[in-house]
Amino acid sequence: MNTWGNKIRLSIFGESHGTCVGITIDGLPAGINLDCDLINFELKRRAPSANISSTQRSEKDDFEIISGLFEEKTTGAPLTAIFRNNDTKSKDYSKIKNILRPSHADYPAKIKFKSFNDYRGGGHFSGRMTVALVFAGAICKQILKEKNIEIYSHIKKISKYEDEKFLNNDIDKERLTKLKNKYLPLLDKSLEEQIENYLKDVKIKGDSVGGLLECMALNLPLGLGEPFFESFESKLASLVFSIPAVKGIEFGLGFDFASACGSSVNDEYYINEGIIKTKTNNNGGILGGLTNAMPLVFSVVVKATPSILLKQRTVDIAELKETSLEIKGRHDVCILPRIIPVIEAVTAITICDLM
Amino acid sequence: MNTWGNKIRLSIFGESHGTCVGITIDGLPAGINLDCDLINFELKRRAPSANISSTQRSEKDDFEIISGLFEEKTTGAPLTAIFRNNDTKSKDYSKIKNILRPSHADYPAKIKFKSFNDYRGGGHFSGRMTVALVFAGAICKQILKEKNIEIYSHIKKISKYEDEKFLNNDIDKERLTKLKNKYLPLLDKSLEEQIENYLKDVKIKGDSVGGLLECMALNLPLGLGEPFFESFESKLASLVFSIPAVKGIEFGLGFDFASACGSSVNDEYYINEGIIKTKTNNNGGILGGLTNAMPLVFSVVVKATPSILLKQRTVDIAELKETSLEIKGRHDVCILPRIIPVIEAVTAITICDLM
Amino acid sequence: MNTWGNKIRLSIFGESHGTCVGITIDGLPAGINLDCDLINFELKRRAPSANISSTQRSEKDDFEIISGLFEEKTTGAPLTAIFRNNDTKSKDYSKIKNILRPSHADYPAKIKFKSFNDYRGGGHFSGRMTVALVFAGAICKQILKEKNIEIYSHIKKISKYEDEKFLNNDIDKERLTKLKNKYLPLLDKSLEEQIENYLKDVKIKGDSVGGLLECMALNLPLGLGEPFFESFESKLASLVFSIPAVKGIEFGLGFDFASACGSSVNDEYYINEGIIKTKTNNNGGILGGLTNAMPLVFSVVVKATPSILLKQRTVDIAELKETSLEIKGRHDVCILPRIIPVIEAVTAITICDLM
Amino acid sequence: MNTWGNKIRLSIFGESHGTCVGITIDGLPAGINLDCDLINFELKRRAPSANISSTQRSEKDDFEIISGLFEEKTTGAPLTAIFRNNDTKSKDYSKIKNILRPSHADYPAKIKFKSFNDYRGGGHFSGRMTVALVFAGAICKQILKEKNIEIYSHIKKISKYEDEKFLNNDIDKERLTKLKNKYLPLLDKSLEEQIENYLKDVKIKGDSVGGLLECMALNLPLGLGEPFFESFESKLASLVFSIPAVKGIEFGLGFDFASACGSSVNDEYYINEGIIKTKTNNNGGILGGLTNAMPLVFSVVVKATPSILLKQRTVDIAELKETSLEIKGRHDVCILPRIIPVIEAVTAITICDLM
Repeated sequence: MNTWGNKIRLSIFGESHGTCVGITIDGLPAGINLDCDLINFELKRRAPSANISSTQRSEKDDFEIISGLFEEKTTGAPLTAIFRNNDTKSKDYSKIKNILRPSHADYPAKIKFKSFNDYRGGGHFSGRMTVALVFAGAICKQILKEKNIEIYSHIKKISKYEDEKFLNNDIDKERLTKLKNKYLPLLDKSLEEQIENYLKDVKIKGDSVGGLLECMALNLPLGLGEPFFESFESKLASLVFSIPAVKGIEFGLGFDFASACGSSVNDEYYINEGIIKTKTNNNGGILGGLTNAMPLVFSVVVKATPSILLKQRTVDIAELKETSLEIKGRHDVCILPRIIPVIEAVTAITICDLM
Repeated sequence: MNTWGNKIRLSIFGESHGTCVGITIDGLPAGINLDCDLINFELKRRAPSANISSTQRSEKDDFEIISGLFEEKTTGAPLTAIFRNNDTKSKDYSKIKNILRPSHADYPAKIKFKSFNDYRGGGHFSGRMTVALVFAGAICKQILKEKNIEIYSHIKKISKYEDEKFLNNDIDKERLTKLKNKYLPLLDKSLEEQIENYLKDVKIKGDSVGGLLECMALNLPLGLGEPFFESFESKLASLVFSIPAVKGIEFGLGFDFASACGSSVNDEYYINEGIIKTKTNNNGGILGGLTNAMPLVFSVVVKATPSILLKQRTVDIAELKETSLEIKGRHDVCILPRIIPVIEAVTAITICDLM
Repeated sequence: MNTWGNKIRLSIFGESHGTCVGITIDGLPAGINLDCDLINFELKRRAPSANISSTQRSEKDDFEIISGLFEEKTTGAPLTAIFRNNDTKSKDYSKIKNILRPSHADYPAKIKFKSFNDYRGGGHFSGRMTVALVFAGAICKQILKEKNIEIYSHIKKISKYEDEKFLNNDIDKERLTKLKNKYLPLLDKSLEEQIENYLKDVKIKGDSVGGLLECMALNLPLGLGEPFFESFESKLASLVFSIPAVKGIEFGLGFDFASACGSSVNDEYYINEGIIKTKTNNNGGILGGLTNAMPLVFSVVVKATPSILLKQRTVDIAELKETSLEIKGRHDVCILPRIIPVIEAVTAITICDLM
Repeated sequence: MNTWGNKIRLSIFGESHGTCVGITIDGLPAGINLDCDLINFELKRRAPSANISSTQRSEKDDFEIISGLFEEKTTGAPLTAIFRNNDTKSKDYSKIKNILRPSHADYPAKIKFKSFNDYRGGGHFSGRMTVALVFAGAICKQILKEKNIEIYSHIKKISKYEDEKFLNNDIDKERLTKLKNKYLPLLDKSLEEQIENYLKDVKIKGDSVGGLLECMALNLPLGLGEPFFESFESKLASLVFSIPAVKGIEFGLGFDFASACGSSVNDEYYINEGIIKTKTNNNGGILGGLTNAMPLVFSVVVKATPSILLKQRTVDIAELKETSLEIKGRHDVCILPRIIPVIEAVTAITICDLM
């Protein structure tokens, strides 16, 4: 089902090459004067740029609010926004209709929906759907801003290039703020050029590459989440895994816990100016499914965009025979930079839903 | 909230040191003759054993069905089972009532529930709650067995000891079947003694250690899951993260995707005896949130049990002052072996819920 | 929250005088070739007509599908339709902004949404929202038609004029079919002129009147619904009470049960051509929350449209003083005929959701 | 599904003649010191009494709390209570296993659950299940009491005997309070003896009778409920229709709206000591799905208990032939008095869920 949330309920709809992508957000407080600059800023972060690593398609993400806004303020009724698909007409998709694109949703989608799914550009499975999440996230960020809650992220790894980490590391505000405006947000600025050059190489080869991002939320209240099925991690992970291309999530030390002893990774408590804190934050701000007022820190891995220009072996499902596929035109060399604002958005949504 | 699922709905209740732990399972078909041997086998896998790495507490997990069973068959009404807590009386917990145990849920739980939570042994946050999930999972496994769906898992890593992998690896049935009966299920049997010795060492030191497991489900139908918020990964991850101690999950290649190019990890299609398959299974059996009929493969990381015998620095929350804590008595050196059947259980539950 | 349903999930949005009213329908099977004639027919039944009893506003309910349709068939992705509001510009609503219209939602809406609600024409509380339900219902009716399930309704009472009843009455197919095309669907045709004349009188007086309708669904399968919280009545009633102006619902004999003895109203079983039936149908086709394969029969009462032309006493909430209100222009003399297709729609939706 | 609610989530389980009936209540605030006297008082109101109209079975409704309580206070974890079935052993139900009891759930239950349902005493469909709702309601009443919210009800009608009404009628506190302790709560006390005599007659005949009750909640806050699918009426009706024997619900003037003109039933506003009120309360405290701070007033009709001592015609479903049925032993002559506390309970639950 395409709905999510208890206090903030999202209903997502649309397709990549149909009329539009859209979202209905229910449960927003009445009287919010939407910060359109913030919304546009976030949408722009997700949009394909002229930069080397994304598709060169001119996808302008204008939002159109068709419900829930009156005299520029939220009314308390469901807020619905749509994003029209402009750049979708010309291409003839029918030729590749039956060619299964490796690592795309094509094959299971075709079977599940008995070939009636809109296959053009991935249809309802398209990464384009995330524009709706970014929109909803921008509104949640605006709500969180008033409570001083901030969300930051950076590229943790692309190929062999590894950035510094947020975890257990005092990152000053200035460095954090700069991350927002960078196409390749990195704590270690010396990596920027190397990664850019690497991506250029990948592009020239017609290939793509995955990546790892780290996200952090500051100033969360204590006790968000529930002990069991609505643990903070459960809620956030359920949203994160609805984003195409995501293949893993870890909190705090994450997979490094596999080789760590309790004595070295338990987060001991101390008192700092009358406030209880932990010396380390290996748990990434969550204990027992609840936020513990330390920074929320988690990482998300994204696979390489499956669309590459290189020839691939595959199957024609209509004729049930093996064939090969060569995708032409633009493609995202590395989707990671565009997924960063989406991850921030679902983080903001999760926090709002639990507050 | 303590409910989960659409077609199979779970409601969990209870505490570690209260009367019992229990679960209500709604949506089960009527007429199932419960396989009590299977249930007991699964419960025993989760129970602490005499083995070196778990608590030596004699926790006998007898289940008592108090609703939904008539003449030994499910009735279609909610099935409720309880697990009484026998071994809970003697200890005096009030002394440590206000001492925050590092990396346990104590601190956020106390704040969230205004100190009214049952703190004894973690209460509703206790790992003991997972006995209810294993019970529900055993019933789901019985349902899946009839559809030839099987679930296997093994230890992928503890400390520096790394096992072989399921992924893209033909594991014969015989080796898989043997995994079920082992306290330390490993594909590479030569590791068993090394890990056992390592755990003995950790135990002697009064320490604990984390670990990584890999789980695989075979013969899943095509198309389980939904494109967005109810993607297969979203549903499974939401359950997995409700299990205490879990800190990360990855599907297929998982975090290794961060450094992989599309050309090397895209799963190309071919035809095998008239059936469409992928040559590799880097996506771990899921594309676009849907199962693609290849084996479901995912890994879960578990942190070291926070309860260790070593002295730790912490805070007395009532007096708001720093103090130290020394936990006495039994403890789990490595919780991973006992979490394996829990992960299999939630996998079975997720599959049943989506079928 | 503005979502409803498990298998068929509705998300409704929009306002009477904003951009549009809309609905997202999730869970529809892929491959349905939408019967636009049926949709338009149902929308027309709900639309204000030239007839005496409704508003004379030219409200043309063109639907625009913006998601979930590809090559004229449903894709399995959420189907979203919008209905633009055309006839909304001219009027100046700001004058009556603070005047509470008696028996409208104005007062609690204003308090709940801190005066940020779109008050024009009732906004999100408007009867216009039901156009979205009729649209969704038409698609569900199309699905039910293939299973031979039919839904009929008629006016049971307006003022002192009482029609015959469906209950325990063999109504021939011909009479049932004729009901669909009548503005005042009545089993006893002699009442038509009397009611028309009565409504003319009410109109001349600037007043309005309520009414009672009876709805019947034939050929339902046995066992729809759940024993408890999702009983058939619970589900249907929850939808019926989301329709503005509805004030009561009863199943089968309904409120007449208050004075009836078990011996006279128990529905005794017999066998008819090998099929188990009940001689009477006082339970209206539902026992224990489940359909019993007898006709579903229920009645719904609708209050008089609160908008009348007569002067009414009320309060100016901004100045917190008493005042009077005279509404000008068109109004629905009796909303009942336009609510009939809405009730049929939610009945079809409920049935589809439970099948 | 057997769960209900968003903020207060109920999961109900059990059978009439199995081990127990039980309920899990999630979402209760931590720290409530349960008022056991109130719980027992409410349970006793629902219990069969020595009074003429109910079953003479000695059904003692002791509750046993098995989760969510610690040191006599709620912990914030799910609260689970069970009610053991004591008086269930002796009778041999297998003889009537295949005889469909008219107007009971037997027939659709048998088909839906493929004859695996626990048919003894109605099993999961039994009126006994409501003991769990009364328990949950008593806790909600305790919560509401602190907010000065009170719930009252009385018999509005049994057979031809009609009581006065709550609606638009100033009932003094003293009369209201007395209602709680009466087996036959009536505003017009002169009716008591007449109804008692009537019920004696019905009992002697081996028959049963239905009835109508009216319920009122005072001091509700403004704006409870949502405009659409979670309107106050939708939520309350969904719970009310989960109670066995309920066949109708109406708010305010209810079915009398069918013959009323807007000019005579619109609730005009006025100002009383600075507070906005309506002169009449024909809408029963709800406008647009939201509470409007006037008393909530609604009525519920209950059918005659289908179990009567008189011989009835029916069908043996195993042999598929007509037969007759004579039920022996105790039965409820009129279930209405025992349903009154259940209706109050679900009202309290609905209010708590929406606050």
